[in-house]
Amino acid sequence: MKKHIVLLPGDGIGPEVTKAAKGVLETIAEQFGHSFTFETHEIGGAAIDNQGTPLPEDTVAACKKADGILLGAVGGPKWDQLPSHMRPEKGLLGIRKQLGLFANLRPVKGFKSLLHASPLKEEVVAGSDLLIVRELTGGLYFGEPRERRNNGAEVVDTLAYTRAEMERIIDKAFQSAQVRRNHLTSVDKANVLESSRMWREVVEEKKQDYPDVHVEHMLVDAAAMKLVTNPAYFDVIVTENMFGDILSDEASVLTGSLGMLPSASIRQDGLGLYEPVHGSAPDIAGQNKANPLAAILSAAMMLRHSFQMNGEAELIEAAVNKVLEEKYHTADLNLTDGVQVSGSVLAKKVSEQM
Amino acid sequence: MKKHIVLLPGDGIGPEVTKAAKGVLETIAEQFGHSFTFETHEIGGAAIDNQGTPLPEDTVAACKKADGILLGAVGGPKWDQLPSHMRPEKGLLGIRKQLGLFANLRPVKGFKSLLHASPLKEEVVAGSDLLIVRELTGGLYFGEPRERRNNGAEVVDTLAYTRAEMERIIDKAFQSAQVRRNHLTSVDKANVLESSRMWREVVEEKKQDYPDVHVEHMLVDAAAMKLVTNPAYFDVIVTENMFGDILSDEASVLTGSLGMLPSASIRQDGLGLYEPVHGSAPDIAGQNKANPLAAILSAAMMLRHSFQMNGEAELIEAAVNKVLEEKYHTADLNLTDGVQVSGSVLAKKVSEQM
Ligand SMILES: CC(C)[C@H](C(=O)O)[C@@H](O)C(=O)O
Ligand SMILES: CC(C)[C@H](C(=O)O)[C@@H](O)C(=O)O
Repeated sequence: MKKHIVLLPGDGIGPEVTKAAKGVLETIAEQFGHSFTFETHEIGGAAIDNQGTPLPEDTVAACKKADGILLGAVGGPKWDQLPSHMRPEKGLLGIRKQLGLFANLRPVKGFKSLLHASPLKEEVVAGSDLLIVRELTGGLYFGEPRERRNNGAEVVDTLAYTRAEMERIIDKAFQSAQVRRNHLTSVDKANVLESSRMWREVVEEKKQDYPDVHVEHMLVDAAAMKLVTNPAYFDVIVTENMFGDILSDEASVLTGSLGMLPSASIRQDGLGLYEPVHGSAPDIAGQNKANPLAAILSAAMMLRHSFQMNGEAELIEAAVNKVLEEKYHTADLNLTDGVQVSGSVLAKKVSEQM
Repeated sequence: MKKHIVLLPGDGIGPEVTKAAKGVLETIAEQFGHSFTFETHEIGGAAIDNQGTPLPEDTVAACKKADGILLGAVGGPKWDQLPSHMRPEKGLLGIRKQLGLFANLRPVKGFKSLLHASPLKEEVVAGSDLLIVRELTGGLYFGEPRERRNNGAEVVDTLAYTRAEMERIIDKAFQSAQVRRNHLTSVDKANVLESSRMWREVVEEKKQDYPDVHVEHMLVDAAAMKLVTNPAYFDVIVTENMFGDILSDEASVLTGSLGMLPSASIRQDGLGLYEPVHGSAPDIAGQNKANPLAAILSAAMMLRHSFQMNGEAELIEAAVNKVLEEKYHTADLNLTDGVQVSGSVLAKKVSEQM
């Protein structure tokens, strides 16, 4: 198969982990006889520095024509004092919205050899394997009005959703549960929010179409507790944008593998933007120290969700597991035994396992 | 001193833990020569059953004239299917709003003898002692419009704040930090929300008035992570209503002492409503099994925050500590050694230590 991939390396360690992921994709192409072509564009701080905007038009145009998009990381203290429309994260919000990437998939799974780094007791976190499906282009993030009023004495933001926006993300979550363990937890605040009451109605309607999935409702405050006390309880969680932002970051630290977590932001037709959950880590940028595994696992998600290459995705995931079992690791993983290597060597080890 | 206290026992285990706390307050009155008078009113499910509304007018009227209010718990499956304006929690939201109880104080502190019940590793949770100051009468909870539109195809909720609402809660938080460890973490989502940008401005202005307090800003998603990875990092956290709801419940499970946590909802003039963080636990209601310590510690908060009786509050808190050190406990605390007793006996042990 022929696929065209846009690389958005971004800031900090973004370029080095993106390069590592690209290398693994090239190994896959060779082994399976695919043809992957690559095109690199700027986003975030790098784009601000070179083009005066966090999201240049040609970046958006290139992404619109791509089959898949791989992003490194955006942001850093260098751009923190800029006015808000000029901040690196505007690039991220902008590309999500302009491409209509409404479904954010955030899998959280413990790696046995890394569980010791979890803040949770081993018996609490063992067996955790969950997927957060976060709505990504609606709610408080984009609702209007969002403004000061009355000479600055008042302010409003708006949590707005259409029923259609709810339906498509809830469908996506039911479908995700069907290829996992058939257990869906819908998270809302229906005892306070009108939007949550509508959300609950849509879930109740949709569940008729997925009789094999066991679905339940949970309040967001209760979910924030249960993620800590019993993360293994969850299979798939679906929720609106802001709740998803908070819960997915809370979930990301549970297994002690934050540096290992991939994410996907996709839309109906399969186009998706894939990026590691970790940030741009400017303190270690350019030193070949950064852990490339989250970026590599993000590339695997691209193969699965945008290219329907499940076998290829599994091969990468198995290779990452093997490399960890052999205890190769970068400094961030804090392993006391095994061999500590550079980011590029770790990526090469993954390719060698495939 | 003469003080008039309204008791709102509510539902489930509410009545028994409220009774226990009342007993401890009577012991305090005797020992210090205070005169506490009590008056009991209905709220929540009990009020729905007997008066057809979760918040009867005479309950509100009595609370308005009180010096302090002690609430047990509201809610239970019995009332879960009622339409939303008739749900027990409407009583809670209503009384907060009608009395203007804008500041919710949620201290989370580990008890040494209970830390084994924490989901976190002991080295992660040790030393945690934080206070969440949550804005309680604004934001998404009460903002208008909150409605369906376009024949049910759309829905909005509104996150609304006035600058004055922000100022008073942020003042309260700075003052709370001053009597603690002088470290304030203001939590917002300023990279997305206009209301958060205003919140940040108000914090920056207010910090001039509290030069002894070290203040920092943290994004809500980062705070949700750091609460799990390093809870001992925090002293006082201040945030808006919905973020506070989520983070305070997340924080409540960190130390393994959910059944021990008190809370206060107060306003400028000192009137406050005090209640345990735990719920109504209908499964064990009426069996004298419920742990009364959170209600007792809530009564201690009332003495401190509404009656300025710091010595009396400390006496109660010390007595609770001693009882735990002697390993008296109710079944919920899951202690393998020590003496398991009923709720009323545990409350009596506290009084005996004073
Ligand atoms: C950078 C920020 C705007 C973004 C968000 O809140 O969506 C980030 O936290 C994320 O989760 O990808
Ligand atoms: C019952 C509910 C409306 C309430 C809230 O969200 O404020 C509760 O969760 C709380 O935190 O006291």
